[in-house]
Amino acid sequence: MKIKQHLTGLALLAPATIIAADRPNILFFLVDDMGWVDSQVAYGEEIYPNNLRHNTPNMKRLAEQGVIMTSAYVCPVSTPTRTSILSGMNAAHTRVTNWTSYVKDEYSDATGGGVQGGVGDTSSDPLVRPDWNLNGMSPVAGVEGTFHATPFPQLLRDAGYFTIHVGKGHWAAAGTPGASPYNMGFVVNVAGQVNGAPRSYYSEDHFGNKPGRWNYMSVQNLAEYYGTGVHLTEALTREALKTLEYPIEHNQPFFLYMGHHGTHTPIQADERFAQKYRDAGFDEGQARYASMVEGVDKSLGDIMDYLEAKGVAKNTIIIFLTDNGGNSENKNKGGVRHTHNKPLREGKGSCYEGGIRVPMICSWRGKIAANTRINTPVIAEDLFPTILEFAGVDYHGKVVQDVDGQSLVKLFTDGSKYVAKAVKRGEIKGQKEQNLFVIPKEISGIDPLRPIILHYPHKWKPYDLHDIDFLSCIRMGEWKLVYRMKTESLELYNLEEDIAEQNNCLPYDPDIARPLAKALSDKLRAWKADMPRINGTDKRVPMPDEL
Amino acid sequence: MKIKQHLTGLALLAPATIIAADRPNILFFLVDDMGWVDSQVAYGEEIYPNNLRHNTPNMKRLAEQGVIMTSAYVCPVSTPTRTSILSGMNAAHTRVTNWTSYVKDEYSDATGGGVQGGVGDTSSDPLVRPDWNLNGMSPVAGVEGTFHATPFPQLLRDAGYFTIHVGKGHWAAAGTPGASPYNMGFVVNVAGQVNGAPRSYYSEDHFGNKPGRWNYMSVQNLAEYYGTGVHLTEALTREALKTLEYPIEHNQPFFLYMGHHGTHTPIQADERFAQKYRDAGFDEGQARYASMVEGVDKSLGDIMDYLEAKGVAKNTIIIFLTDNGGNSENKNKGGVRHTHNKPLREGKGSCYEGGIRVPMICSWRGKIAANTRINTPVIAEDLFPTILEFAGVDYHGKVVQDVDGQSLVKLFTDGSKYVAKAVKRGEIKGQKEQNLFVIPKEISGIDPLRPIILHYPHKWKPYDLHDIDFLSCIRMGEWKLVYRMKTESLELYNLEEDIAEQNNCLPYDPDIARPLAKALSDKLRAWKADMPRINGTDKRVPMPDEL
Repeated sequence: MKIKQHLTGLALLAPATIIAADRPNILFFLVDDMGWVDSQVAYGEEIYPNNLRHNTPNMKRLAEQGVIMTSAYVCPVSTPTRTSILSGMNAAHTRVTNWTSYVKDEYSDATGGGVQGGVGDTSSDPLVRPDWNLNGMSPVAGVEGTFHATPFPQLLRDAGYFTIHVGKGHWAAAGTPGASPYNMGFVVNVAGQVNGAPRSYYSEDHFGNKPGRWNYMSVQNLAEYYGTGVHLTEALTREALKTLEYPIEHNQPFFLYMGHHGTHTPIQADERFAQKYRDAGFDEGQARYASMVEGVDKSLGDIMDYLEAKGVAKNTIIIFLTDNGGNSENKNKGGVRHTHNKPLREGKGSCYEGGIRVPMICSWRGKIAANTRINTPVIAEDLFPTILEFAGVDYHGKVVQDVDGQSLVKLFTDGSKYVAKAVKRGEIKGQKEQNLFVIPKEISGIDPLRPIILHYPHKWKPYDLHDIDFLSCIRMGEWKLVYRMKTESLELYNLEEDIAEQNNCLPYDPDIARPLAKALSDKLRAWKADMPRINGTDKRVPMPDEL
Repeated sequence: MKIKQHLTGLALLAPATIIAADRPNILFFLVDDMGWVDSQVAYGEEIYPNNLRHNTPNMKRLAEQGVIMTSAYVCPVSTPTRTSILSGMNAAHTRVTNWTSYVKDEYSDATGGGVQGGVGDTSSDPLVRPDWNLNGMSPVAGVEGTFHATPFPQLLRDAGYFTIHVGKGHWAAAGTPGASPYNMGFVVNVAGQVNGAPRSYYSEDHFGNKPGRWNYMSVQNLAEYYGTGVHLTEALTREALKTLEYPIEHNQPFFLYMGHHGTHTPIQADERFAQKYRDAGFDEGQARYASMVEGVDKSLGDIMDYLEAKGVAKNTIIIFLTDNGGNSENKNKGGVRHTHNKPLREGKGSCYEGGIRVPMICSWRGKIAANTRINTPVIAEDLFPTILEFAGVDYHGKVVQDVDGQSLVKLFTDGSKYVAKAVKRGEIKGQKEQNLFVIPKEISGIDPLRPIILHYPHKWKPYDLHDIDFLSCIRMGEWKLVYRMKTESLELYNLEEDIAEQNNCLPYDPDIARPLAKALSDKLRAWKADMPRINGTDKRVPMPDEL
């Protein structure tokens, strides 16, 4: 009787902690602007030449202990992906389809002003940007220019998780609640706020915090590193390890959102790694970029090592992802523009594969089969229900938004095991066969043919970019339809045969295109998605099924 | 047997949390630059005219539920007080006797350069600043220009406390570990870093985070408030309440270091409160300053209300303190310079009472007698052992420094009860008698005659300030000796009869001065305290007992 009382007392004292003690930790490792072929992890059917450029032993190591997602999709630019992840909604549904400016109520669109994009003369542009949610996501209702949603870190926190944010936030503009990770459900924040890029990666520049140099991109909260020679990627890593101490010491499950600024512009060498690329004949831009990728890889390895050393690696799920495709429209990256993501077409900003198909790996020892590949297409908003299911949190009835994403837990676990068995039985061999292997919905819970939709009703830069501006797309299975809003035209590609999207099949397969156009249009209508306006008129561009 | 196993399992899972659940929470509410007579809490023997200037109902409310410390001492400027508190060492012993610059290796002394002080022509100054620890405090060894000490928040954290830092840090220069609260033992940090003042209190100015306006004082981590009309004092309060949610929800004891920037310069009105002071005939500077004091008062009340609402007020100790005396050398505060702290002589920067004697209140329901007054002199470094004893943490053998401070726990608890009984028995009546009442050491653990030492071997501003620059002092009981290093002369005051330090008794009572001079000198020698150099020579100024 006395023991029972004691027990009850304990349960009363710290219920969340005790109940949560068995739950897995979750490390969400989000890289910025790193492309699908930027690492030694070969997501494609073969090892492409671009996979050989960068030394990324830790990404390889993670892939070897987890599952490679060969068809992971995110939005063409940063904020839409990030707010999709936090809300579980498709970006067309959140109506945050472009990145948020640092200052409230300023459109970042090249056609609409904004502090980053610069403003070209847009009067002769054929299309005009819609009035999208330019201030991003808000965890509270009634904030102008935002969509209101319950961020999943809040649900994790409510369920007893110790939630940590380190690095890049970029969910919302300054002057709104979403500007602070402390409002998004994080217990701890280091450096997260409104900036989409760092003013500088260099401690000598104080990461931008110098008189005359400061702007809204200057990275906060890192004064201890000023002038110490520590690259931003390394500084954020050290901060992450520091903040992990508390939950590990207290045996509380943690969620670490490790949001690296790397490998976003400015392209500034991580000098720990750059010289060997210069020596290998890379041009200066290529060498700098390569060193930034390797810096991020080192960060991943350091965190993995730390988790091992602390004895929590076994029960820690790691999700590795990039927030959009590799930037192929920046001369400072060196090389030849629009080739950086080859074989994929184009890069960041685009709805062609180079802009939206990104590296993704998930690992969980014993639960996810190691060294496997899954080709089921997945998308940013799936992470919301996935992470919550990993944590044992049922979000139904607890959130204000309609969640579009689907949980990938069964796909990661049962799906990867299904693949592993097929490999073991010799049913599929080699990278190509594994990449083409279809996991039925009965096994994974995910329909391999479900529509994957990206929508970018914007002009990216102050100048025209034919394969980037004003595009939407839908992928269903092997087929992908691209909608060019400027010309009100469609293109159809078979990604299994033509991953480079070079051969438009629309003239030959109009019957295949039609249901894709309808599915895309139905979703955009259901989500009340923003469509650009035709310049000089009040007319919106038509939906693809109206063409 | 099964139950027992279960129990053991629980204990194994979250020991710190469970053990710590009975421990008191601690709110350390640290105001900046607010003077001894700046509130309606009358610390003196009577209610002075200056006590009637500002509306501070919450400071009164706190005083009514706790003990007023009438003789609380801190250093004449910010960083030395703050690093004394964190280390438990006297500032002369830490050799951080002036405030730290934002950038490493730059002396803040007016005589020695530095980004804040400005540099006058010091070639004809009689004294030259010593090579003090210009980079502040470091939690790790071997950092140049710092002293190494174990910060008490680290010990609290190690013992299971959820440690939160909100607001002003200012323990160390950028580029050193002490620049980040995350290195000082805090689990959560909002806005704390190297700046000793805010660039702006106004959200319209983004607290200084605007191109062309930014400098090292710009307050970080508050982007959500930009342009919202929320004053910095209110923003920091809201952040504090937000960060308290987690430990309260998880039933973990917390330590909140609420470090307000208010009421430091720049003197910018808190417009929620300013108009009534203007209407009452205050000049604009006075009205602005008054509104800043009332803003801080509101913050205290809001936090107290929050603790009540959450049901944790009863078990929360509140320590209210200012980091140095009120600034009486700033024309923007309005009024007449050098009068703001009357009856006390001088203000911030000075070793006369106006610079070092500050508001202090401590409350803990049931443990500290309400509505009491204690005149035993106490000093900044006492807070280290005090807070640790409150938390049940024995620091002996766990810290690298020699702690100078003494725990005030018995003084606060048994001392206040001793006073309350004397009042109840009618032995002491009224403010004056209570202020003169001596609590014997047997009751409080603190010798009421122990030496209280402040040491400021610096020139404060680029111009000479006769009653501020290069002073040291020692108080023992009713007597106080002031050492003027520039003239190598001593002054003796009887604080009981002459709190305004107008009548130098040295000519009449040299025998009283002698042991004070020796005690001051002995301590300075033991601590290897810095002494200024006589210009044009290699000679240090003599110790007071060498005169």
